[in-house]
Amino acid sequence: MAYLNENYLKLQAGYLFPEVARRVREFCEAHPKAAKRLIRCGIGDVTEPLPRAAVEAMKQAVEELGHAESFRGYGPEQGYEFLRSAIAQHDYRERNIEIADDEIFISDGSKCDCGYVLDILGDQNKVAVPDPVYPAYVDTNVMAGHSGPARKDGSYEGIVYLPCTAENNFVPDPPKEHVDLVYLCFPNNPTGAVASRAQLLRWVDYAREHEALLLFDAAYEAYISEQDIPHSIFELPGARECAIELRSFSKNGGFTGVRCGFTVMPKSVLARMENGRRLPLHSLWQRRWSTKSNSVSYPVQRGAEALYSQEGREQVRLLIDHYMENAKLLREAAADVGLKTFGGFNAPYIWVKTADGLTSWQMFDRMLRELNVVITPGAGFGAQGEGYFRISAFNSRENAEEVARRLKKLA
Amino acid sequence: MAYLNENYLKLQAGYLFPEVARRVREFCEAHPKAAKRLIRCGIGDVTEPLPRAAVEAMKQAVEELGHAESFRGYGPEQGYEFLRSAIAQHDYRERNIEIADDEIFISDGSKCDCGYVLDILGDQNKVAVPDPVYPAYVDTNVMAGHSGPARKDGSYEGIVYLPCTAENNFVPDPPKEHVDLVYLCFPNNPTGAVASRAQLLRWVDYAREHEALLLFDAAYEAYISEQDIPHSIFELPGARECAIELRSFSKNGGFTGVRCGFTVMPKSVLARMENGRRLPLHSLWQRRWSTKSNSVSYPVQRGAEALYSQEGREQVRLLIDHYMENAKLLREAAADVGLKTFGGFNAPYIWVKTADGLTSWQMFDRMLRELNVVITPGAGFGAQGEGYFRISAFNSRENAEEVARRLKKLA
Repeated sequence: MAYLNENYLKLQAGYLFPEVARRVREFCEAHPKAAKRLIRCGIGDVTEPLPRAAVEAMKQAVEELGHAESFRGYGPEQGYEFLRSAIAQHDYRERNIEIADDEIFISDGSKCDCGYVLDILGDQNKVAVPDPVYPAYVDTNVMAGHSGPARKDGSYEGIVYLPCTAENNFVPDPPKEHVDLVYLCFPNNPTGAVASRAQLLRWVDYAREHEALLLFDAAYEAYISEQDIPHSIFELPGARECAIELRSFSKNGGFTGVRCGFTVMPKSVLARMENGRRLPLHSLWQRRWSTKSNSVSYPVQRGAEALYSQEGREQVRLLIDHYMENAKLLREAAADVGLKTFGGFNAPYIWVKTADGLTSWQMFDRMLRELNVVITPGAGFGAQGEGYFRISAFNSRENAEEVARRLKKLA
Repeated sequence: MAYLNENYLKLQAGYLFPEVARRVREFCEAHPKAAKRLIRCGIGDVTEPLPRAAVEAMKQAVEELGHAESFRGYGPEQGYEFLRSAIAQHDYRERNIEIADDEIFISDGSKCDCGYVLDILGDQNKVAVPDPVYPAYVDTNVMAGHSGPARKDGSYEGIVYLPCTAENNFVPDPPKEHVDLVYLCFPNNPTGAVASRAQLLRWVDYAREHEALLLFDAAYEAYISEQDIPHSIFELPGARECAIELRSFSKNGGFTGVRCGFTVMPKSVLARMENGRRLPLHSLWQRRWSTKSNSVSYPVQRGAEALYSQEGREQVRLLIDHYMENAKLLREAAADVGLKTFGGFNAPYIWVKTADGLTSWQMFDRMLRELNVVITPGAGFGAQGEGYFRISAFNSRENAEEVARRLKKLA
């Protein structure tokens, strides 16, 4: 009989968001009246319509596929040149960051890339993750056998957790010990924290000293409003030798249901074999894509390209402004009832200390029951998330205002 | 320094199709005049426009995403119910095959699924593949560490090859030895062979006796024209306990650039742990999707759904008829010049013995140089493919007729 991958059995309970969905479903079934006024500020899912530029580009691309003279079949496995070039140009070279078109790899989303990237890395790597953290980083490593069993608090043996607490403003310093692979995410999900240039430089220095690899998740870079916060790890000198960047169109272009993201894999990033020989990861990554994928839907790639047009960029700007105005409303409303809040300035997430010493799942249940508002319990993001919850600013203005009103009941 | 996955270094040269593309590119650069009359019958990529039903459904779905009242963000990780239910109903239950909606998992294509499915399987499995074979089956196993090093003929130690030859009509019998995991593909890529009910039953019997898992690739089932050939492994009694089926919309709906496929994972398929305990793979597969993916683009899923409408099915039928008429033309033209041909009756591929004892790459070069026609060298599909080449019937009628004319020069 075929063997299964036993690493899956180490995974704790459900993946966070399906578990949230399950509890909400049960609540709604039991309280159909309350269900009608339910407002979701849980999962970080956009709510506003796609930018018109993307809609028109996708419709046109679909129509192209309906005619013999403009039909396209398989595209290049690492993504179409038109999109890779738009990305490299606008997100990098225009910001004086040296990235070549063929260092961009188009994917069906950052969540997917988190898993894909482990394909090309060895199982011996010592992995460090922030705590709290986007669960997919940890879970994909557990599934790939890069951890020991789970502990009672939901953490895993063999993984190095970097505590992100109010004391360090939720930006961890590099550890004393050696690790091979570090996940960083700024602006951060779930805490909304951002890292300064000096803080990121410490990480690049650590990576160079320990020859570690940084997996930098910049899915929320479009939400940075302060001037001097780096948008890309590659703004830091030396990062081209030690970092891979993950980006997404989910949170700027509202592509959560359209599915498109990319990785930046500089050709100068090396990794080693057991015998000490060093090779560029780029060629392995290229091979991964050409063997295991046929890239992303052509109309989707055209939609992503359109986000870089002048019209597209203006429409994205309006979307970001919309969500960040929500963030301001929600942040202030929470603060008004005496809740301690973090984030929400350069990210669409507000990280809030629970009231009355409740655990984060207790707070989840209370918010659901008393306010009919869904938030995400901090503990779902890691042991250090206990005692916090995340409010997502992804909502209509009307809903954000209503949640702000309901929060007053917590006073 | 981070360790890389050394298994990638076992891989032979380039993945087949990029290597074909490279040789074609070099030829075209050196012979710009010949390049203008080049006709591609190499990679199995569709050429005809998408069915109108899919175009309209996708455009409508894109437009929905452009309006607040119909916007959708993240969809269910295993795919939308509307599509899973259409598949389970039309492809299975209407054919008296018992498959539940939640046994269908939507993906971005069968090539991707070939890699994904290994995520949930153990590294101890003994793997058997047909030879010749779609290269992604083997390469993904090599990348996952399920093989030893490559041999000189391009095969890998540790993998069991099942020779598909003219003697067995390119349908292998189960091996004498024990294996845990068997890849089967009917109608076959590259040989165009189909397996009868009796032949597939021998495989199901083998799987049940050895508690092996069958990965059945039915990407080409729509091309079956003969009455009594099974379209699904689940037509065979007992297959629900030992088989997973992979399907694609690439070759029926022309979705090679749109990207959509699915796996059928019956809840009754078990796999074992080291300690002998048996668990359903379905829950691991569900977990894989919820942790590592956010499913497939919503407009793409609507496009796939439209292929099951009455209009969509008629349009798919016309596409299949078109390609199969090409197959007839090409098959007969090759036979007319004395080439020995196989397949091309229930599949869009014609498998042809090379002329004059040429190797298959020699034949590739000759066809490219003399006829300006791109085919796929059989050796690219495995050691047993040496001495054969594959002609793809995916083309316009005009091109197929022209290739048929040019083939006469081989006489």
